[in-house]
Amino acid sequence: MNKQTLFVVKIGGNVIDNSHDLAIFLAQFAQIPNPKILVHGGGKIATEFSKQLGIEAVMINGRRVTDEAMLKIVVMVYAGLVNKNIVALLQKANQNAIGLSGADANVIQATRRPVQEIDYGLVGDISPESVNTAFIKTILAQHISPVFSPIAHDAQGQLLNINADTIAACLAKALSRDYAVRLIYGFEKTGVLENPKDDNSVIHRINAQNFETYKQSGVISGGMIPKLENAFDALEAGVGLVQIGDALQLLSLCQNPPASGTTISF
Amino acid sequence: MNKQTLFVVKIGGNVIDNSHDLAIFLAQFAQIPNPKILVHGGGKIATEFSKQLGIEAVMINGRRVTDEAMLKIVVMVYAGLVNKNIVALLQKANQNAIGLSGADANVIQATRRPVQEIDYGLVGDISPESVNTAFIKTILAQHISPVFSPIAHDAQGQLLNINADTIAACLAKALSRDYAVRLIYGFEKTGVLENPKDDNSVIHRINAQNFETYKQSGVISGGMIPKLENAFDALEAGVGLVQIGDALQLLSLCQNPPASGTTISF
Repeated sequence: MNKQTLFVVKIGGNVIDNSHDLAIFLAQFAQIPNPKILVHGGGKIATEFSKQLGIEAVMINGRRVTDEAMLKIVVMVYAGLVNKNIVALLQKANQNAIGLSGADANVIQATRRPVQEIDYGLVGDISPESVNTAFIKTILAQHISPVFSPIAHDAQGQLLNINADTIAACLAKALSRDYAVRLIYGFEKTGVLENPKDDNSVIHRINAQNFETYKQSGVISGGMIPKLENAFDALEAGVGLVQIGDALQLLSLCQNPPASGTTISF
Repeated sequence: MNKQTLFVVKIGGNVIDNSHDLAIFLAQFAQIPNPKILVHGGGKIATEFSKQLGIEAVMINGRRVTDEAMLKIVVMVYAGLVNKNIVALLQKANQNAIGLSGADANVIQATRRPVQEIDYGLVGDISPESVNTAFIKTILAQHISPVFSPIAHDAQGQLLNINADTIAACLAKALSRDYAVRLIYGFEKTGVLENPKDDNSVIHRINAQNFETYKQSGVISGGMIPKLENAFDALEAGVGLVQIGDALQLLSLCQNPPASGTTISF
């Protein structure tokens, strides 16, 4: 039997921080067919609030170091302000939605990251086995879109900060047993670009072979390399397609085959 | 057929503001039989955060006036920080729980309060008809406790601040069609007291008749009068029992018949 297509869409800070862009994105998200899941980060709002409260934001290798004061802020901003606003806006767009942290219905249980060279603080690690797919399936079956904030818990009463890309990838992998999953990373560019200054230079398809070539030639470099390695990792774990593209062109990204962005497959 | 008993428990600021008391309360909440619902306010945390951010909290007749800046804070604190912490602590206590605002799964749809003599700002009014009981029943049937923050939405994308007592009463009334509901208001006193200085002077039962007598003699006065009027209102709408008692004695309040606190019935 063919599995039903499930869209797992992740949006980052640039969309969340701009209420106009967020509205455009959510109107499109509301129009893509159910079942679908949204995963969001927190954007600059958490950093701004921490500044106003006199708490310094520390980043190491692009990841936030989360002490107790910072955890309070990310829980407030991600699981509270950003999450509930997105849910209310989806309700307005006639898409029933439910905001979830990993603690809610025990949907994502994390383990606190062990301290090695760097102590990231109250940060969690998760795997596809961390995901309570049974509950998520009951929500999807009711045509309700789960909206995930990047917060989980350790089952010992401690909330933990999680990377939103990792949440999206773990959900996609875990739900691949039951659905044909399309994992879509929406960001501010039109896709993976051959020339970073030219939005029209999108690489439409990346597979294991041309990925090596692009890496060797330096076309793909820096932070895009781990992003694409994670994409191949998701494909190996059973995710049907991974896509990277403009969050504001979500409807064209969701076409079959995709009408924009970069598609990663074997 | 006898209806199943459903506990709807509301806790206020005094319990939430004290992590030791909150842990005692939640350990007891975890032990009362399913199905059960928890409704919480926000305590002083919202006021403290608003002070730190330089936003003044304005109260009229004991209700918070909610402008846009204050709404952000109550959404962050109530629906984020307090709600997710309670859910994580219940998971630790082996009680599966899910945090909800009214926007989530469209469980409580409010209308913004019309401006009359006082403009309360982004504050909503709700009724039992505002409650999406179908969704709540699917959650309760999975032995998951919904944990409600006092935030709802207007279905037009606007989040609204709601009085937590009102949320608890509306949930209790709406679910009375399907359950034998016991609505329990947990606070810092042992119940409605004949002598406010004597914790042993609890009035064990209040009915319509002795309520009048207590009012006339001045034993019951001030803010307790509307609280009890709301209790009778809930009974008229089908709620089985309304109780007021010490949040830290929840297990004795939940006994049948109640072993502490004040029970309000006809």
